Amino acid sequence: MFEMDARLLQDTQLLGDFPLSRVLLMNDSRYPWVILVPRIAGASEVFSLTAEQQQQLWQETNIVAQMLNNLLQADKINIATLGNVVEQLHMHIVLRRRTDAAWPGPVWGHGSAEPYTKEALENRATALKNALAAYFQDDNKVEL
Amino acid sequence: MFEMDARLLQDTQLLGDFPLSRVLLMNDSRYPWVILVPRIAGASEVFSLTAEQQQQLWQETNIVAQMLNNLLQADKINIATLGNVVEQLHMHIVLRRRTDAAWPGPVWGHGSAEPYTKEALENRATALKNALAAYFQDDNKVEL
Repeated sequence: MFEMDARLLQDTQLLGDFPLSRVLLMNDSRYPWVILVPRIAGASEVFSLTAEQQQQLWQETNIVAQMLNNLLQADKINIATLGNVVEQLHMHIVLRRRTDAAWPGPVWGHGSAEPYTKEALENRATALKNALAAYFQDDNKVEL
Repeated sequence: MFEMDARLLQDTQLLGDFPLSRVLLMNDSRYPWVILVPRIAGASEVFSLTAEQQQQLWQETNIVAQMLNNLLQADKINIATLGNVVEQLHMHIVLRRRTDAAWPGPVWGHGSAEPYTKEALENRATALKNALAAYFQDDNKVEL
């Protein structure tokens, strides 16, 4: 049975469910940062998904990348699945700006997260949920 | 017309051409590290590719990830498209081990590359070329 990794749960705010992935907002106000977690028990590498699930994951990744780029001002979108710390397969989509804390380096391992204020977190989450609403589903079963 | 970024050219060894991407070996002996560069002029973000090209890029990425994992001993495969330094769209596929120089942090921006010896570079390149030969094409036109 699929269960969210405890650390991912703790560091993020739930936005909704795509057909394959749970969509999370990283609670780090330094970067607009979305994480996708395919709701597949035990998956840790992209190639542990079926070909259809892989394709779906990349589609969902692109939806988020494009949405962030349209909604907010991006100099670059960083897309990555690393999993060196949290083993559960998850995809990072991070909006980068030349003025951000880690530019041009990667965001992982750079300083410490700066959580949003409660209000800012709610505002950011609401904006992203609205932008992604058309892709969300209510039923959280994966049917691929 | 597609042209390789000068920095990518300098830091890598050519392995071959997939239908969409040029396949390069990063000349850094600290990690088995392959870079894919879609042969599309001016592309810098995944969503600047057509849907078909995106799908092809992910397939080619997975081929490399799985090949590295099969051929060498991986604790984790890191997959990322960042492009904060080199703007030309390129995908990193890096084999990670718990004992490697940057673990569990990301490889980008961690210390300096340690080039292979000439012989080691040739050996590594030959092994990867052999493992990927079935996917290479002679004609370097993109026909997607």
